[in-house]
Amino acid sequence: MRTAPVDVVRYAGGRLAEAADQLGVEEPLEIRLGVLREGTRVYRNVVVTMRTPGDDAVLAAGFLLTEGILTLPSQIESIEQWDATLPNVWRVDLAAGVEVDWKRLERLTYAASSCGMCGKASIEMVAARLPAAPLFDCRFSAAMLVGLPARLSESQAAFASTGSLHAAALFNTEGELLASFEDVGRHNAVDKLVGGEWLAGRPVRDKLMLVSGRAGFELVQKAAMAGVPAMAAVGAPSSLAVELAETTGMTLVGFLRGDRFNVYAGAHRIVT
Amino acid sequence: MRTAPVDVVRYAGGRLAEAADQLGVEEPLEIRLGVLREGTRVYRNVVVTMRTPGDDAVLAAGFLLTEGILTLPSQIESIEQWDATLPNVWRVDLAAGVEVDWKRLERLTYAASSCGMCGKASIEMVAARLPAAPLFDCRFSAAMLVGLPARLSESQAAFASTGSLHAAALFNTEGELLASFEDVGRHNAVDKLVGGEWLAGRPVRDKLMLVSGRAGFELVQKAAMAGVPAMAAVGAPSSLAVELAETTGMTLVGFLRGDRFNVYAGAHRIVT
Repeated sequence: MRTAPVDVVRYAGGRLAEAADQLGVEEPLEIRLGVLREGTRVYRNVVVTMRTPGDDAVLAAGFLLTEGILTLPSQIESIEQWDATLPNVWRVDLAAGVEVDWKRLERLTYAASSCGMCGKASIEMVAARLPAAPLFDCRFSAAMLVGLPARLSESQAAFASTGSLHAAALFNTEGELLASFEDVGRHNAVDKLVGGEWLAGRPVRDKLMLVSGRAGFELVQKAAMAGVPAMAAVGAPSSLAVELAETTGMTLVGFLRGDRFNVYAGAHRIVT
Repeated sequence: MRTAPVDVVRYAGGRLAEAADQLGVEEPLEIRLGVLREGTRVYRNVVVTMRTPGDDAVLAAGFLLTEGILTLPSQIESIEQWDATLPNVWRVDLAAGVEVDWKRLERLTYAASSCGMCGKASIEMVAARLPAAPLFDCRFSAAMLVGLPARLSESQAAFASTGSLHAAALFNTEGELLASFEDVGRHNAVDKLVGGEWLAGRPVRDKLMLVSGRAGFELVQKAAMAGVPAMAAVGAPSSLAVELAETTGMTLVGFLRGDRFNVYAGAHRIVT
């Protein structure tokens, strides 16, 4: 359920009148990680995040990948709903022998795992967790790029009816839309997107990710952790997002609207 | 420092060219709470959040208010930067005799304090922490409301130059702008706004809060915890935001654009 009907009072033409509207659905998702200990599953709560229901398995997988908790889909044995009475609780059972750093899980989210010293320290903490391989050196045509927001809009059914859902989509160098997801939370749309590709074993190393809103630090972090070499946002990037893109060697495009955009980092991947 | 200059490569008219741009600044803020124990200050990290620097004292105060950790400004003795070498770490020293529930602090943010059972449980957890007094029963004119986004834009200096900062503003029933704040994080802009009024002892019980983007669960939670009876968003609300507004008796307006808007909850406060 991505959207829900709602009765509203609409003000237009100087008058208040009852009307029908659609809302993007927001519900909490709890992810529990299950580790095998001497033949027994031991579960631990990893995070509760507000998300739009649907695609919960790929969201859980993407979250574990982009937060640096897992690195290979083979580390996962199964991802399932806890039970029918708890539709918003999902368990991720790890394969035998896979261990996770519980200590780090306690200070998990980027916010908690960061520190208050300076943005530079936040960047260093992300950089230390990045995969060893540098981001792939592919090329994207500028003329192709300006056509992507329209393709994203076409795929965004729920946004059209609610205006409330953020989207993230993956494109190849030819500008083909490979996958797209929507969510009330921009970071969840990104986790769903990279989680789905990761679970399916489809490489993202030569792909571009487009997000519907602004590009903050957290989104660049998630793209870098997943190995996506280029990210474009319809809105503006933040200062720290640009610094992190530069540090990780990622291409970061902002204000992708109409027939123009700005490249804030990694401009060598954009060609005319 | 709200904005920072950056060199970009701009694509326009089919050509790539170097250009200058401005970014909204994003840096981590760490809040440490200091409690007096037998004459000694004991500090504990409360949260690290990505924010736009500036107004850090009111952001810290607002966060402690809207997360339900403190209820009276008199519980705070002082709010200061940790020291000059740690500009992003702020200490909030509590007055003698003021204790906080450390246990709850461990599961602090709305995400962590929520549970994955259902949206209803999230609403009940917020409702249980709300101030006992019901939200005030004031009235706002619809014709006044449609003029507010323009007043907010006028006050948003940084957004004009960066397009990357969210804003939150407080208006009285006459539509006067009383205060406004900007931040890369919408929730931070709200915390700055209500934190500033709270510290100054200015009541918000008959005011309306306007936010520049969308209205999710977390923003309605923060407004309700601060006692703001009406919230308007330029963008769309989520389903859970509407449910929480209904539960708390708050007026929630969305899509406040041009000469129209929708009222999703508490329509009795809006009059023609």
